[in-house]
Amino acid sequence: MSNSLYVCTMNYMKRGFASDNNSGVSPEVLEKFAEINKGHVVGYGDDIYTKKAINLLKGQFGESAIPFLVFTGTAANVLSIAAATKSYHSVICASTAHINIDECGAPEKFSGCKLLSVNTPNGKLHPVIIAPLLAGKGFEHHVQPRLVSISQPTEMGTVYTVEEIKQLSAFAHENKLLLHMDGARLANAAVSLKLPFRAFTADAGVDILSFGGTKNGLMAAESIIFFNPALAENFKYIRKQGMQLASKMRFVAAQFIAYLENNLWERNAINANKLARYLCRQVKGINNLTVTQPVQANGVFAIVPKEIIEKLRKEFFFYTWNEEAGEVRWMTSFDTQKNDIDEFVSILKQLL
Amino acid sequence: MSNSLYVCTMNYMKRGFASDNNSGVSPEVLEKFAEINKGHVVGYGDDIYTKKAINLLKGQFGESAIPFLVFTGTAANVLSIAAATKSYHSVICASTAHINIDECGAPEKFSGCKLLSVNTPNGKLHPVIIAPLLAGKGFEHHVQPRLVSISQPTEMGTVYTVEEIKQLSAFAHENKLLLHMDGARLANAAVSLKLPFRAFTADAGVDILSFGGTKNGLMAAESIIFFNPALAENFKYIRKQGMQLASKMRFVAAQFIAYLENNLWERNAINANKLARYLCRQVKGINNLTVTQPVQANGVFAIVPKEIIEKLRKEFFFYTWNEEAGEVRWMTSFDTQKNDIDEFVSILKQLL
Amino acid sequence: MSNSLYVCTMNYMKRGFASDNNSGVSPEVLEKFAEINKGHVVGYGDDIYTKKAINLLKGQFGESAIPFLVFTGTAANVLSIAAATKSYHSVICASTAHINIDECGAPEKFSGCKLLSVNTPNGKLHPVIIAPLLAGKGFEHHVQPRLVSISQPTEMGTVYTVEEIKQLSAFAHENKLLLHMDGARLANAAVSLKLPFRAFTADAGVDILSFGGTKNGLMAAESIIFFNPALAENFKYIRKQGMQLASKMRFVAAQFIAYLENNLWERNAINANKLARYLCRQVKGINNLTVTQPVQANGVFAIVPKEIIEKLRKEFFFYTWNEEAGEVRWMTSFDTQKNDIDEFVSILKQLL
Amino acid sequence: MSNSLYVCTMNYMKRGFASDNNSGVSPEVLEKFAEINKGHVVGYGDDIYTKKAINLLKGQFGESAIPFLVFTGTAANVLSIAAATKSYHSVICASTAHINIDECGAPEKFSGCKLLSVNTPNGKLHPVIIAPLLAGKGFEHHVQPRLVSISQPTEMGTVYTVEEIKQLSAFAHENKLLLHMDGARLANAAVSLKLPFRAFTADAGVDILSFGGTKNGLMAAESIIFFNPALAENFKYIRKQGMQLASKMRFVAAQFIAYLENNLWERNAINANKLARYLCRQVKGINNLTVTQPVQANGVFAIVPKEIIEKLRKEFFFYTWNEEAGEVRWMTSFDTQKNDIDEFVSILKQLL
Repeated sequence: MSNSLYVCTMNYMKRGFASDNNSGVSPEVLEKFAEINKGHVVGYGDDIYTKKAINLLKGQFGESAIPFLVFTGTAANVLSIAAATKSYHSVICASTAHINIDECGAPEKFSGCKLLSVNTPNGKLHPVIIAPLLAGKGFEHHVQPRLVSISQPTEMGTVYTVEEIKQLSAFAHENKLLLHMDGARLANAAVSLKLPFRAFTADAGVDILSFGGTKNGLMAAESIIFFNPALAENFKYIRKQGMQLASKMRFVAAQFIAYLENNLWERNAINANKLARYLCRQVKGINNLTVTQPVQANGVFAIVPKEIIEKLRKEFFFYTWNEEAGEVRWMTSFDTQKNDIDEFVSILKQLL
Repeated sequence: MSNSLYVCTMNYMKRGFASDNNSGVSPEVLEKFAEINKGHVVGYGDDIYTKKAINLLKGQFGESAIPFLVFTGTAANVLSIAAATKSYHSVICASTAHINIDECGAPEKFSGCKLLSVNTPNGKLHPVIIAPLLAGKGFEHHVQPRLVSISQPTEMGTVYTVEEIKQLSAFAHENKLLLHMDGARLANAAVSLKLPFRAFTADAGVDILSFGGTKNGLMAAESIIFFNPALAENFKYIRKQGMQLASKMRFVAAQFIAYLENNLWERNAINANKLARYLCRQVKGINNLTVTQPVQANGVFAIVPKEIIEKLRKEFFFYTWNEEAGEVRWMTSFDTQKNDIDEFVSILKQLL
Repeated sequence: MSNSLYVCTMNYMKRGFASDNNSGVSPEVLEKFAEINKGHVVGYGDDIYTKKAINLLKGQFGESAIPFLVFTGTAANVLSIAAATKSYHSVICASTAHINIDECGAPEKFSGCKLLSVNTPNGKLHPVIIAPLLAGKGFEHHVQPRLVSISQPTEMGTVYTVEEIKQLSAFAHENKLLLHMDGARLANAAVSLKLPFRAFTADAGVDILSFGGTKNGLMAAESIIFFNPALAENFKYIRKQGMQLASKMRFVAAQFIAYLENNLWERNAINANKLARYLCRQVKGINNLTVTQPVQANGVFAIVPKEIIEKLRKEFFFYTWNEEAGEVRWMTSFDTQKNDIDEFVSILKQLL
Repeated sequence: MSNSLYVCTMNYMKRGFASDNNSGVSPEVLEKFAEINKGHVVGYGDDIYTKKAINLLKGQFGESAIPFLVFTGTAANVLSIAAATKSYHSVICASTAHINIDECGAPEKFSGCKLLSVNTPNGKLHPVIIAPLLAGKGFEHHVQPRLVSISQPTEMGTVYTVEEIKQLSAFAHENKLLLHMDGARLANAAVSLKLPFRAFTADAGVDILSFGGTKNGLMAAESIIFFNPALAENFKYIRKQGMQLASKMRFVAAQFIAYLENNLWERNAINANKLARYLCRQVKGINNLTVTQPVQANGVFAIVPKEIIEKLRKEFFFYTWNEEAGEVRWMTSFDTQKNDIDEFVSILKQLL
């Protein structure tokens, strides 16, 4: 994301608004590690903890969901694409999509596919903007559209409604495409929509989901969930070949157990979303500051006078999203506290 | 490895001899996690813990060593290969090498290179067996040898001497090849050789090292260490594109801090090696049992009557290495205890 | 190209305006085949005819030019990219570029690179529209720009001036990028500019050139010409691995000998360009018809009433370029004749 | 093949025994070019000549055969593999196979697959030597065998019987593998077996065939023929992405028309095979010379005293196959004449 264009020069320990991956992990994760760190179990996932994590994921996403655990969000996305495509296929996504901008070309490198990205006002795809990309179907000179990939929430902090997702999946399936959802922050979307995960994934026609935990209090735990069993059939080989098969898998599993068994995911996301809305309310009236996107998850996008950005960043680290426009991104996290925001807003007001 | 040909049917918690990745993690790892799980730090490695881990690694391997952290041993190997090669190159390795057998073709998939594997009596390469593979150099019909990859210790539990490594690196460099070392169990080699790491890596002419921690008490922490700075120059892009850049990097770093700052690596490897030798001594005299490889690290290879293998495996899980020969592999781990072996040997003797 | 969206239903033998690859080959090609089809020569290019073709190419492009022969234009482009990049690089091109649209994702598949395409009014890149794409340089989350690829003439039938190319190469080199030129129709550009090839390639700062012959009267002969010897160093392996090393290379060489030794390239391109201009003049005054691009090479782009397109196509085959706009493309070829155009324009006028 | 280890220093025009691709093309090819070089046809294969070539190929291989035309034998093999595999698959072949040794790693690069090669006495695979390679099936650590690839004739000049091929295809299909045949010299095998092509391809259970013409008198024309329609379904995209779609396809088609419509293939192969057998008979009695393989196609392998090799090569170019053993390879071609052999044998006898 364009935010990486700014190098942090602080070795700070202060909670900021740079990204939800700047936070540490929920204490429940470390407790779960201690609990399961006993004796030997077979490596690579053939153990009781992995089975439990898989079952908890099925509990959230439905019995027919087929989950696989990996380490990084990039891997969850790239391996999802690899599972759904051949190298002559294309993947349709928003130009702001993480797969398009922030993964150093890993999707192209690993899958061989071309990404067809389209500009959107708010990070959301819609059948109307996808349709023209299908014109080359059947002609061998052109990459063949195979997968539509959406982010939920989007990289712009907006959240698709169930209806919007259903429209996309219906459109995709009518055109023999599959629908992938990058849910690196899926918990924030669920809390925003006040819906169980499956209502806007499996039940809305999503075929493959990247379900993230790292950005919401886990350490390094992401999953790929197939709602279309044919796609999952040989996926274990893709994961291994993709260098994402954990030898001590129980510790990736443990993170998902901690995440799901007592609704840690929900508590964490409620906090992050609530404080993003709070931040939005606190800054909305301020002169010379425009919130540019509806705050539906845990990100606030705003245009602020360029001259204050560097000064503000010295106090609380965050990233510029759009240099030219002076648009910045403030992310809240599972551990953000109300007084972080009060302090931040107070400094912001002084600078303006 | 061929050991995965046997599916474990036990959900056991008992320490066995299947693999050193069947163990959990050293308590020091969890303690370190708790210690550093405070506040925010910049993601992706631009934080004080990662800097500390890098410095500790430089402390072991020399100031000019350039380390990068990743999650899995397969990734450490594959990305090492990718850093050193173009797709028309070949990688020379022993036929028993992990990269050749146990990584589901990830090296070929990611680097495009062909692996040229050669049979060896003990898992060790030698210039004499490499030389004939160089015959096609300069001819465009043939893949071009670029990298020699050795495992230290080997997959057969043997350990290269410093002299053997120097011979290989000299031979490689004379022929404009690079030398890669797969050190997934490097601590076990160091303890076996009674030498500091750098004596048989950097100082012996190794160009790229996969330095593992997971198999010796860490959770999921491996590193790639370049002794040839030109190879490291653009490696950050390869790691990211290889889906191995941790967003909460401090927790991978923490594992290496725990590993290196109080010689945890050494204590763990001493135990594993010592108990492998103990196991070897206990079984060596037994009738109908032949130890097939010198026990120089933490693995014991033995031929035992085929009819007892399944019975023995029901008590203590382990893998068959060579089905036809009835050769089995018994691995000790950082947490193996003397009475595990006494019990195992006692059952073994009853069965024989 | 979008023109492939229309399937030809005629088995016609009539010269049309679909593409310059719908024509056959110049008689000189077949004569040269007959001349060299004697005795044995070493395969794969180590023969006197290939040496002669290489020398003739050096005669056109300068002694330091390093040419390689291949079969297809897609191969010339893709292997050029592969020679200049690593998989984490990106290639900057116009959204209309052949590499972006008409090669079924071969550049991404073979090189692993991402293509960063930008919209242009006339198919031409300019430093001003490239500059914003360099923002992510040095940040590992983003693909790293490495190559600027331009088409000369462009896919829109326009031709870069020497000055424009020099600006692009200067900009590229200042930013440590390389400049590639897709010269599938380079002869048409040379004739248009009234300049020798090297004046707007080697001498204008181009690093790698795809120099095509097939579209201008050859059978299947394209070349990749390096003006930067470092890039050529290992290219023979890339060509072989790219499945483009001809075993009976003398017959690819023969085509270039025929093309270059008596200026066949020039005679052919003069005819095609002249008749494109003639076609343009004949249609320019017609009501309800708008020529949309300057006619600088051998293509004429025009918007015509949609209802006549199918009728016209039944008489002379051609492709629609932009369905929505009703924009069509008419290409002339080395063998197009004045009366082809007179007949075509006469029918067009009747339909309008 | 190791024969490329010798660089030819002659610009000779004399027919030698280096390779059947050192010859030119049959006159019928040039005649066919002249015949079809008229008017315009749609590019990329949608023309009457390509349809005719396809029909002639179906005439040879059966109505359900699905042929695609490409330029090179390496492409035919590599794209066959790509059509049949995913990147985690492996391809089983003889260690002498062209795909294993002589294609610069193109199969690995393009398909991502690992090649599992096995030593054979005569270049032929057999179920008994394949079976052990299937041990890792179903285990994600190991590449998954998917394709068995055999060469007919083999690179050692031997020819599989129908029965041998049927055994291999039955074995492959029982194990859910596919059978690929590299038929770069298929005509020589057909003539040797005195059987129509389909008797030892389609009717013997082959799934995918590389059917070559270049080595038997064509210029640059190879085909991939699917006997399993599911594999052909999306192959047009693979061919295009593999840079092997000819724009002026009619000229590739023309070569196959010339090859098949008047049995040119048969006449050419009869000559080559007959003269290989003649060469074999002439040298067999010679002291200090051992023919090492049965001469079943157009290659003769022999061990000769090392000291005469260079002298002999100065008169007639050929390649050394096995340097250590002093084994050489002499290939006859469609244009080899009896007196070429008489002269060659006479010099050989003088040298010995």
